[in-house]
Amino acid sequence: MPIITLTTDFGEKDHFVGGVKGAIYSELEDVRIVDISHSISPFHLTEAAYIIQNAYKSFPQGSIHIIGIDSGLTPENKHVAVYLDGHYFICANNGIISMLASEIKPEKIVEINIHDRIESNFPVLDVFVKVACHIARGGTLEVIGKGIDTIKELTGIRPVVNPEASQIIGNVIYIDNYGNVVSNITRSLFDKIGKGRSYKIMARTATFTEVFNNYSDAINFDLPPEKREEDGKKLALWNSGEYLELAIYKSNPSTVGSASSLFGLEYRDTISVNFE
Amino acid sequence: MPIITLTTDFGEKDHFVGGVKGAIYSELEDVRIVDISHSISPFHLTEAAYIIQNAYKSFPQGSIHIIGIDSGLTPENKHVAVYLDGHYFICANNGIISMLASEIKPEKIVEINIHDRIESNFPVLDVFVKVACHIARGGTLEVIGKGIDTIKELTGIRPVVNPEASQIIGNVIYIDNYGNVVSNITRSLFDKIGKGRSYKIMARTATFTEVFNNYSDAINFDLPPEKREEDGKKLALWNSGEYLELAIYKSNPSTVGSASSLFGLEYRDTISVNFE
Amino acid sequence: MPIITLTTDFGEKDHFVGGVKGAIYSELEDVRIVDISHSISPFHLTEAAYIIQNAYKSFPQGSIHIIGIDSGLTPENKHVAVYLDGHYFICANNGIISMLASEIKPEKIVEINIHDRIESNFPVLDVFVKVACHIARGGTLEVIGKGIDTIKELTGIRPVVNPEASQIIGNVIYIDNYGNVVSNITRSLFDKIGKGRSYKIMARTATFTEVFNNYSDAINFDLPPEKREEDGKKLALWNSGEYLELAIYKSNPSTVGSASSLFGLEYRDTISVNFE
Repeated sequence: MPIITLTTDFGEKDHFVGGVKGAIYSELEDVRIVDISHSISPFHLTEAAYIIQNAYKSFPQGSIHIIGIDSGLTPENKHVAVYLDGHYFICANNGIISMLASEIKPEKIVEINIHDRIESNFPVLDVFVKVACHIARGGTLEVIGKGIDTIKELTGIRPVVNPEASQIIGNVIYIDNYGNVVSNITRSLFDKIGKGRSYKIMARTATFTEVFNNYSDAINFDLPPEKREEDGKKLALWNSGEYLELAIYKSNPSTVGSASSLFGLEYRDTISVNFE
Repeated sequence: MPIITLTTDFGEKDHFVGGVKGAIYSELEDVRIVDISHSISPFHLTEAAYIIQNAYKSFPQGSIHIIGIDSGLTPENKHVAVYLDGHYFICANNGIISMLASEIKPEKIVEINIHDRIESNFPVLDVFVKVACHIARGGTLEVIGKGIDTIKELTGIRPVVNPEASQIIGNVIYIDNYGNVVSNITRSLFDKIGKGRSYKIMARTATFTEVFNNYSDAINFDLPPEKREEDGKKLALWNSGEYLELAIYKSNPSTVGSASSLFGLEYRDTISVNFE
Repeated sequence: MPIITLTTDFGEKDHFVGGVKGAIYSELEDVRIVDISHSISPFHLTEAAYIIQNAYKSFPQGSIHIIGIDSGLTPENKHVAVYLDGHYFICANNGIISMLASEIKPEKIVEINIHDRIESNFPVLDVFVKVACHIARGGTLEVIGKGIDTIKELTGIRPVVNPEASQIIGNVIYIDNYGNVVSNITRSLFDKIGKGRSYKIMARTATFTEVFNNYSDAINFDLPPEKREEDGKKLALWNSGEYLELAIYKSNPSTVGSASSLFGLEYRDTISVNFE
């Protein structure tokens, strides 16, 4: 049974998500629709890119991912369908896919051109659903658009390395449900530049000299509970997407605070790594 | 496979939605349950009516829609099942269905009377699920209730036209995830009264003399980007439900503001159209 | 078709829930995944216990419930799979299951030991999904862990009865979407201690001498509407989970206020019952 996932900034309240699902079931009876997120901040391309990048890999090959963010059709914001890493992505050509495509080259990109027959101010429902159902039925990308070679880049999402290769300057790209702060510094970049040297990570006033593989690795469980300093323990770790994350052990943003609030870090703030 | 949709004010956190789904799957193995919204403001009938009206049409004929808002059974708040436009709706007779029924006459309305056998303080789970599964199995409405002719009206949701037919006085009925403001003025009423005359739309201090079909129609893409005045651009448009909507182009309520915050418009506020 | 439910504190925005669903569908094509809640307050074991306890009973026998709260594997927070009341629960051994197990004895508990083969900082995806799919395919608990006899208790969630059996001292364990306040005092304890005596329920400054079976039982519908005092009517009732709940009739926390705000009651606050 084909899988169609939905990642949007429609929110949890409006009728948009329900409408899209109804339209899919009206076209296809045997399909599995899976919500990835509908709570992306409105028009926030980086958040959407981060979320889809970390979610899609868990799905079976051949899954179809609709991304409904900033999808209004304009002369500069065309609709595309992309085949990449065994998955299909349908979205506007606004940069969302560039985070994925920076690591894995798309095998095929088409600019959707079925709009001559569809006029719409709800393109996710009227266009993306049609394209997704076409693919789900086994249709090819060539039928719904013309091939293009490159997609638009999302700017300012890659970390910078200084000429001496002694420093990586990254940014906060996402703050998760626990208030943990995710940077755009990947483990692979870190290893490539660091080459095993010792380092100091700096984010405003917070510093870290170790990156854990697990939240609980930061805690010494050989000590008795009262001596462990678990509460409010700050740590850096490689998160499940292999990004450098700054966290507070068992944080709750609405009570004890979180990495974001305690370190004063927000979206786009700088996080740097200095190697010795 | 039958489709049962859920529209409630249960919220995303409590166990209510999960409980309802479990109860449906306990009765029917082959059924598709689709969430429309669980974030309706508590007891907000107009919001619920607006959302179900705009979502149901996308679903296949024969779909069954459970609406769990203000569903406590009282002598004045009976439970009904309605067949309308090829869809089934199960809800309290509190006015929710009147927005739908104002445009399309219900083919059948029954007042549910299976309560003699069910005592409950969770009627969505105990009564509506039973009724929905009965219909999903092909059962008739006559078995679960006695036919009635009319349903309760939701008051104050229709716009008013002045005797000279020169003015439509409407209200804000919904504010969406982007902070865009939806009025109860439909395109069909506007066309019928306006007859092509020019007009001025007024909502507090904001005025509009054009209604677009699309968000992006408000932007002149022939200009270079820096001259387009996209940011914060206010516009009126016919939304995907054909209601008059006042919007800010690419608004984000939590950062740059939205039509609701910038125009100072809230639920029930007046929006009027003056024709020349 | 097997049912796997999800109850987590992952929130509605992040990629975690989507990732977990993708992983399940990658292992099993024919499975039904049902969200119970992803909005548990971070690391809030009591909330999670209350929600899963009230939701699971609606599901068919044999359903598999993944509970992803505080699931980081540590020497003191092992992973368990529990078979209880015909349902399977997969979670950390952190007390969540003890609220269920206080009423119904688990038939089987195993401490999961497949971790030797899996290293993870996302155990719900990497461990719980594997266990759930194993069970869904008909696998036994013995294969994925070694049997243990007891599970960890959640402390401070049981009400206390004074030696004279004249008073039950309970606590607020949950505040629902309507701001209604749920205590840990069950109807069965109340009946057992009260033995039909009259009583006074006290919660800060609010008192109640009657507990209804229904929200609407608190309203006298024989009176004309203007004399009923429906608005803001406070009441105590046995909720659908048979817990003592303090409520405001048709409350909306964001407008007219709720039991929680009006009575000044928050999580852990005391609610007591004094029998004559």
